[in-house]
Amino acid sequence: MYRNNTCGALRASDIDSEVILSGWVHKVRDKGFVVWVDIRDRYGITQLVFDEDRTPKALLSKATGLGRETVIQIKGQVIERASKNPNIPTGDIEVLVAELQILNESILPPFTIEDNTDGGEDIRMKYRYLDIRRNPVKDNLIFRHKVTMEVRKYLSEEGFIEVETPYLIKSTPEGARDFVVPSRMNEGQFYALPQSPQTFKQLLMVGGMDKYFQIVKCFRDEDLRADRQPEFTQIDCEMAFVEQEDILNAFEGLTKHLLKEVHGIESKDFPRMTYDDAMRLYGNDKPDIRFGMEFGELNAVAQHKDFNVFNSAELVAGIAVPGGASYTRKEIDKLVDWVRRPQVGAKGMVYVKCNEDGTFKSSVDKFYDQEDLAKWAEATNAKAGDLICVLSGNTNETRAQLSALRMELAERLGLRKPNVFAPLWVIDFPLLELDEETDTYHAMHHPFTSPKPGQLELLETNPGEVKANAYDLVLNGNEIGGGSIRIHDKEIQATMFKHLGFTPEEAKAQFGFLMDAFQYGAPPHGGIAFGLDRLVAILGGQETIRDFIAFPKNNSGRDVMIDAPATIDDEQLKELHLKVDL
Amino acid sequence: MYRNNTCGALRASDIDSEVILSGWVHKVRDKGFVVWVDIRDRYGITQLVFDEDRTPKALLSKATGLGRETVIQIKGQVIERASKNPNIPTGDIEVLVAELQILNESILPPFTIEDNTDGGEDIRMKYRYLDIRRNPVKDNLIFRHKVTMEVRKYLSEEGFIEVETPYLIKSTPEGARDFVVPSRMNEGQFYALPQSPQTFKQLLMVGGMDKYFQIVKCFRDEDLRADRQPEFTQIDCEMAFVEQEDILNAFEGLTKHLLKEVHGIESKDFPRMTYDDAMRLYGNDKPDIRFGMEFGELNAVAQHKDFNVFNSAELVAGIAVPGGASYTRKEIDKLVDWVRRPQVGAKGMVYVKCNEDGTFKSSVDKFYDQEDLAKWAEATNAKAGDLICVLSGNTNETRAQLSALRMELAERLGLRKPNVFAPLWVIDFPLLELDEETDTYHAMHHPFTSPKPGQLELLETNPGEVKANAYDLVLNGNEIGGGSIRIHDKEIQATMFKHLGFTPEEAKAQFGFLMDAFQYGAPPHGGIAFGLDRLVAILGGQETIRDFIAFPKNNSGRDVMIDAPATIDDEQLKELHLKVDL
Repeated sequence: MYRNNTCGALRASDIDSEVILSGWVHKVRDKGFVVWVDIRDRYGITQLVFDEDRTPKALLSKATGLGRETVIQIKGQVIERASKNPNIPTGDIEVLVAELQILNESILPPFTIEDNTDGGEDIRMKYRYLDIRRNPVKDNLIFRHKVTMEVRKYLSEEGFIEVETPYLIKSTPEGARDFVVPSRMNEGQFYALPQSPQTFKQLLMVGGMDKYFQIVKCFRDEDLRADRQPEFTQIDCEMAFVEQEDILNAFEGLTKHLLKEVHGIESKDFPRMTYDDAMRLYGNDKPDIRFGMEFGELNAVAQHKDFNVFNSAELVAGIAVPGGASYTRKEIDKLVDWVRRPQVGAKGMVYVKCNEDGTFKSSVDKFYDQEDLAKWAEATNAKAGDLICVLSGNTNETRAQLSALRMELAERLGLRKPNVFAPLWVIDFPLLELDEETDTYHAMHHPFTSPKPGQLELLETNPGEVKANAYDLVLNGNEIGGGSIRIHDKEIQATMFKHLGFTPEEAKAQFGFLMDAFQYGAPPHGGIAFGLDRLVAILGGQETIRDFIAFPKNNSGRDVMIDAPATIDDEQLKELHLKVDL
Repeated sequence: MYRNNTCGALRASDIDSEVILSGWVHKVRDKGFVVWVDIRDRYGITQLVFDEDRTPKALLSKATGLGRETVIQIKGQVIERASKNPNIPTGDIEVLVAELQILNESILPPFTIEDNTDGGEDIRMKYRYLDIRRNPVKDNLIFRHKVTMEVRKYLSEEGFIEVETPYLIKSTPEGARDFVVPSRMNEGQFYALPQSPQTFKQLLMVGGMDKYFQIVKCFRDEDLRADRQPEFTQIDCEMAFVEQEDILNAFEGLTKHLLKEVHGIESKDFPRMTYDDAMRLYGNDKPDIRFGMEFGELNAVAQHKDFNVFNSAELVAGIAVPGGASYTRKEIDKLVDWVRRPQVGAKGMVYVKCNEDGTFKSSVDKFYDQEDLAKWAEATNAKAGDLICVLSGNTNETRAQLSALRMELAERLGLRKPNVFAPLWVIDFPLLELDEETDTYHAMHHPFTSPKPGQLELLETNPGEVKANAYDLVLNGNEIGGGSIRIHDKEIQATMFKHLGFTPEEAKAQFGFLMDAFQYGAPPHGGIAFGLDRLVAILGGQETIRDFIAFPKNNSGRDVMIDAPATIDDEQLKELHLKVDL
């Protein structure tokens, strides 16, 4: 038996017990006459003590020689600590060691196994198995487990069945790129790894499974932006005989359950906002509503004066920065520089200081009087002491720029509090998105998303205006889930494919099995998928998904620990009937 | 709202309620003046009624025209049935329909959606989404969900953390063949799909995760034997600071929990048997102990007479077939033919009838007298009325043949009862297995399996005799789980690699990251992996894993529903820097 207690278990009530502990040497403090060794495992740290009076000389010297991260087993007696440590649960006791066995040595780790390590990101990823010994990483993984257990418990109790769908499926040119898997048994043919189980979950609805979910890995071979992973995990869900309202209620319930179980938060009903309103008020389809700073549109009050920059703009919009009237000229200049960075791309910024005495001081006093500026303040909901920042130009670009500025300022002002959770449903997404390069429409969500009732005709006349039964769940400015009511009618589906530029033959080749299935009595259905990595990170009060994945890949899609991907040998290629052609 | 009740919910207590139901038309019985329609969903079947007296004519005729599998929504009133059906939970009531809406039509399904369908395996697989509507398949998938939920609940409550390990890993030539995944971003390089998360779970132990589990897909590109799948699901587990006893106890606990939750069975402690005993008594390392018929070894009592077939055999062994003394000559001849089939491969079979009067009648009476045969009966534990079947020859072959005969006879005698569960631990597996073709040893379990304490020296002198800290959990003659205590000492690991024929360079190239990790204080650890597909099938009282997989592949590794694998287009190949070379 390696242990009868963990290193986090012993308390004052255990004093006098004989215990066996196993774990890693966390720290050795050698005072000569007394040696303290902290022994660590997943559950905590216990202080071991060896001293001149009570410890045989050989044992004392063995303890003195213990290196960090050595794996040891000890037997000893729990005793009261002379100087208690109220900061750790085992702080009242220590263990007077009678026997010490070294189970495994450790060479010097490349970084310290401490909450605040001296190791940089690269070295910690290469030695991820050591990084995981650190509380911040270990706790994140345990937190992830807790969240997924709660998801499964909740959905299962709500009658959802977790069904495993296949990983070796078929490549479709649609959407982001598939990873493919050559088949040895079927020469020259390839499986594909799923980008999502979308078609399978719809087939399960055709199959009468009624309520499906799955926590499942998905794969996307796309150029990796920061904090994207080529393999990622979804909570994938689908329900039959539902309308949008049923789905929103079901998964609002799940999210409330998680906030309650994980943080003890009782949530009110989640607010809902249309996509159009989200874009108008926040310039963003995933607004962070932990704070205000909604956009005020100023066209009506700022145009038709002599300021040509505004007059020629499609949109003039501003936000009120709380307390910003006190910014110095230098600080404001820096803010102007910030919005002009290529990543943001604004040409310039107009500002208005709302002075405490009710007067205004702006960068465009030449063109606007106090009365004009008072209207701006009203439109942006600015109060005395605030700074109004105004951007202008093309509507979409201006909204994106102002949204970036809003987020940046909120970050600086400490308004994006990690322990505050502000969920929001964004609904009524456009069905189609115009690809301006090719001047073709593609599905904003995916090609099975149903248009809003009565809007099918618009597809012919004004496809960009058609709204979908599609919705996102947004949490603290991040899209954590998204879904739609699907098309279950094969005529409507055929119309959709036509508008997405598929010939009937192409549609059949790619989605034939789904369209075939829909001939046999497909029920009305819809669903949602949550990005688990991000959901867990945000619930954990953080934003970097990599910190919540045990063995993540870097931005080049490489696992630097195991050094993958790698070349494979010619024999293996030959069996797969493949040649590498660089 | 599509429904306010499911089709399995309504009872006598709901009589007079107004209800809305949605589902599929299961059956229409048209008596002219009255039409009954069974409406079906995941939860059950409810009888709808339309009749001349109470139903408007148009509605009655609409009901008459309903085709099977049409998706409908109805509103109506729950009424008491005239002739109740005690065989279904909704059998006391029917719904008098006031409104009927057709939600979706169905063309004629290729087979009937009934428990006993007229559809063969091939057609059901092609239209799996329709097959899933059938209770036997649907119930299996729901059963699978229930089992996995219980696994997760139990392990989670026992302190295990589910950690997701990566799917895009690195190919190793070791063991069965990897599926590989070309990387677009890393030209000419490949990921591999995991055959198991073995190395990652060991790294998690090095990382201090202490107790890990994961229900995870694994992949093996090997020639498919019947009832194997290229992608399969494991319950993968690992624990640190454990000895074999700790693992057996932990997972015996899990298995008992499942038997209790799923079947209400309170299990006694599971018997344990060494590999050597299992081979000696059952000719099999996964004996079905729902019934006896243990082997009796007869060398001592059957050799050194004049029967040369036995005298020249390495092993003479028999089993007692309960009640077999009554078999006719013709039946016994058929049994002899059976063991001589190429799939079994015995040269012949000797038999002894144990007559009710205590005498014996054998096929070798020329060579053995009654006293000899009494000794055979004693050795095989045969009773009056039994038939002793005796095979002989090379030990391994004879055991395999006799094991096949034992299983066949048990099947015929109805001794393999699907609702009886007989778990068994088989322990002390050999560490190495001789590959007779190449005369080299390879790891029976895998190369990280630790030898039994004190047996390391045998590796030099008699490697085939070394026993491992390896164990299988057997249920009803199927290996449902297997594992081992791992080597955590890098010296022992190096010795193992040497005996497995790896040069230090080869070992480093393949397992370098694991061996590196072991330098930093690897704890003693061990684990087990359960084959979930098989576990669920056996707990479900069946043996075909395909019946418990939503979308299985056929014996050629093809998904006939989506027609995968398939060719991919040249553009995609070019991006991956690959050429197909048939």
